[in-house]
Amino acid sequence: MRAELIAVGTEILLGQIDNSHARFLSEDLATLGISVYFHSAVGDNIDRLATLLQTALSRSDIVILTGGLGPTDDDLTREAVARVAGVSCVYDESAFETHVAPFFRRAGRTAAENNRKQAMRVGDAVFLPNPRGTAPGQYLRTGDTHVFLLPGPPLEMRPMYRESVRPRLLELVGEGVIESRVLHLFGIGESDAETRLKDLLRVQTNPTVAPLASEGEMLFRITAKARSHAEAQALIAPVEREIMDRLGRFVYGFDDDTLATVAQRSLIESGHSVAFAESCTGGLLTSMLVQIPGSSACLRGSVVAYDNAVKVGVLGVDPQTLERDGAVSEAVAGQMAEGVCRQLGADYGVGVTGVAGPGGGTAEKPVGLVYVAVSDLRGTNIVRRVFTGNREQVRIRAAKTALHALLEKMGKVRQ
Amino acid sequence: MRAELIAVGTEILLGQIDNSHARFLSEDLATLGISVYFHSAVGDNIDRLATLLQTALSRSDIVILTGGLGPTDDDLTREAVARVAGVSCVYDESAFETHVAPFFRRAGRTAAENNRKQAMRVGDAVFLPNPRGTAPGQYLRTGDTHVFLLPGPPLEMRPMYRESVRPRLLELVGEGVIESRVLHLFGIGESDAETRLKDLLRVQTNPTVAPLASEGEMLFRITAKARSHAEAQALIAPVEREIMDRLGRFVYGFDDDTLATVAQRSLIESGHSVAFAESCTGGLLTSMLVQIPGSSACLRGSVVAYDNAVKVGVLGVDPQTLERDGAVSEAVAGQMAEGVCRQLGADYGVGVTGVAGPGGGTAEKPVGLVYVAVSDLRGTNIVRRVFTGNREQVRIRAAKTALHALLEKMGKVRQ
Repeated sequence: MRAELIAVGTEILLGQIDNSHARFLSEDLATLGISVYFHSAVGDNIDRLATLLQTALSRSDIVILTGGLGPTDDDLTREAVARVAGVSCVYDESAFETHVAPFFRRAGRTAAENNRKQAMRVGDAVFLPNPRGTAPGQYLRTGDTHVFLLPGPPLEMRPMYRESVRPRLLELVGEGVIESRVLHLFGIGESDAETRLKDLLRVQTNPTVAPLASEGEMLFRITAKARSHAEAQALIAPVEREIMDRLGRFVYGFDDDTLATVAQRSLIESGHSVAFAESCTGGLLTSMLVQIPGSSACLRGSVVAYDNAVKVGVLGVDPQTLERDGAVSEAVAGQMAEGVCRQLGADYGVGVTGVAGPGGGTAEKPVGLVYVAVSDLRGTNIVRRVFTGNREQVRIRAAKTALHALLEKMGKVRQ
Repeated sequence: MRAELIAVGTEILLGQIDNSHARFLSEDLATLGISVYFHSAVGDNIDRLATLLQTALSRSDIVILTGGLGPTDDDLTREAVARVAGVSCVYDESAFETHVAPFFRRAGRTAAENNRKQAMRVGDAVFLPNPRGTAPGQYLRTGDTHVFLLPGPPLEMRPMYRESVRPRLLELVGEGVIESRVLHLFGIGESDAETRLKDLLRVQTNPTVAPLASEGEMLFRITAKARSHAEAQALIAPVEREIMDRLGRFVYGFDDDTLATVAQRSLIESGHSVAFAESCTGGLLTSMLVQIPGSSACLRGSVVAYDNAVKVGVLGVDPQTLERDGAVSEAVAGQMAEGVCRQLGADYGVGVTGVAGPGGGTAEKPVGLVYVAVSDLRGTNIVRRVFTGNREQVRIRAAKTALHALLEKMGKVRQ
């Protein structure tokens, strides 16, 4: 199966937004064993889009288009696909009632006249529901090619891909199964980890082992093709054991786990609560936990103590310690963790203080210096790190380090 | 001038890395007035790359290739360009000594035999220096098309583009400037805004007016081509005035502004401070402000009052109000704003409470219901909204609504 991806939107060609779909879709298609041969992006121009589409239909089994499904005159993907496939593009009242109108009803608004355009059906396409926006997707087969039309906004496109596209692709891939096991690592660098698994990364063909690094952490994905679930698992298991033997102490989770989901699950399972005292991360750490539904079961709350007066007044940090050691120090991190734990009545308190940059660094306390403290009021652990990267990277890495330190304190990962 | 971009590398098609060059180059080419018509990515396969390149040469004046200039067998860009251009690709000893060997000397290492491949010259191409890596770039003209070959690593490619490619493009473009003005809007839907500017969006050719929507807000970009800065401004000004006349009350900022940068700037300029009390947004609102360097000048801090006990204990919300109206209510939002303003000693307090979902909704208080309150202790404004979308969308829109409500309270945007 050969696939290619086409992103539609002049704003991509103007560099106003990233074509982030290409990576998201490619990564998942790879796990399904579908080879992606081309990525393209083209503007809101029906002739250029049609030309590109013509080529795509002639060389690929699967074409996924993203963007150009909105209600305006610039949204031309439906018309372009219809033109190249040689089919009609006509208004479908029942599709409008099923897929477009309910979104407006839920929002207590009425659909504008131009929103009817979003219910124009390309030939005999099947509509793909979009509960998060006004643009339903479409799926049709033309010649030997399977064509998927999806909207551009990532928060609409990604769940639609998972719910309506992926299951169809799995059917197309046919016999056999493709299964993956993902190991999530924290506290080890990409090249270090890859060096330790060099033999597995090079030699393996089934299962394959692929590394992927992201902000401050990395993962290894083991993927097996087999005739059955059991056979796929039998291929994966020994490789997983081998990786765990070599790098197990850095592994904090599996498959869809993130540091935040593992922290939330560990807290809820053990019946414990947490509270955060954030300085340089400024709410980002709390937000990572709140992003996951159900966090109210374990999160008491947080204090973003940006100003030193808040550290003293709300968290009870000792002004003399602040004076002596400065706000970015082991002692202040510890007192922030203990203070928030006590003030908010949590089982664990986590404090983060650091220099996120770009300004504010000194020779002694450079940009990127971060202290993380975790306390259960019986004892407080401190982690000191110096991160490279820009303000955003330092903040993300600091927040992740705090979640990992919490897991360490709870005994959920090895120290 | 028509340009297109081709990224070469199987790791892009596997979704292992983003094709971040496309956006970087497109954004800069737009400022030069060069229209980018296509982005493509292709793997390390000489036949597919050559086919794509053939099409590119036939339709574009400028083709910029990134990637595939390394020393390994997978690095095929030079050979592909030579094949399609019908020229030879031969080792150039002097290019090796000038462009490849010095990098190794500076690093105290010796070039490997396969690094000689990086000095293979495509036809009569000019080498482009790469002081940060082993792969020099190349520039050649074939037919009417200008072809640039650049290495893949962003830290090598980007400075090379600025130093060796951009000056050549400026020469090609010749006289003239391209200037843009961006208007940022909040509180109006995409299709509503476009309907009100339909005539401008359709008819204008110089300047052009282009809409762009993102999570809960939108922008219009006015772009003019002219012989001078003054002439470009003279083209833009009347269109900007026309948009301001029709939609000015929704415009909160210009050019690189975001709600957070405008809020930060307004606070700092007026010498005021802010404190946030967040419930459903869980730190996201604070994080939007902290993301901008310099926030310590206006942010006192925040309390994420996820648990009701924290709303009462830290923020001083009245338990009877909580009991009577529930945590998601106008009264509690107001008390959160007032409480955090008082407790943290800020000039403005902002409170946000809502149902982010997916669970927790009722008929009376559905998922997406959000109350935002802004208080200066003399008066408190309340905004009520019901957002559609998933948990993440509701949280982002709630946080942006809170920043906008703060701007309203400060008199920086029209109510």
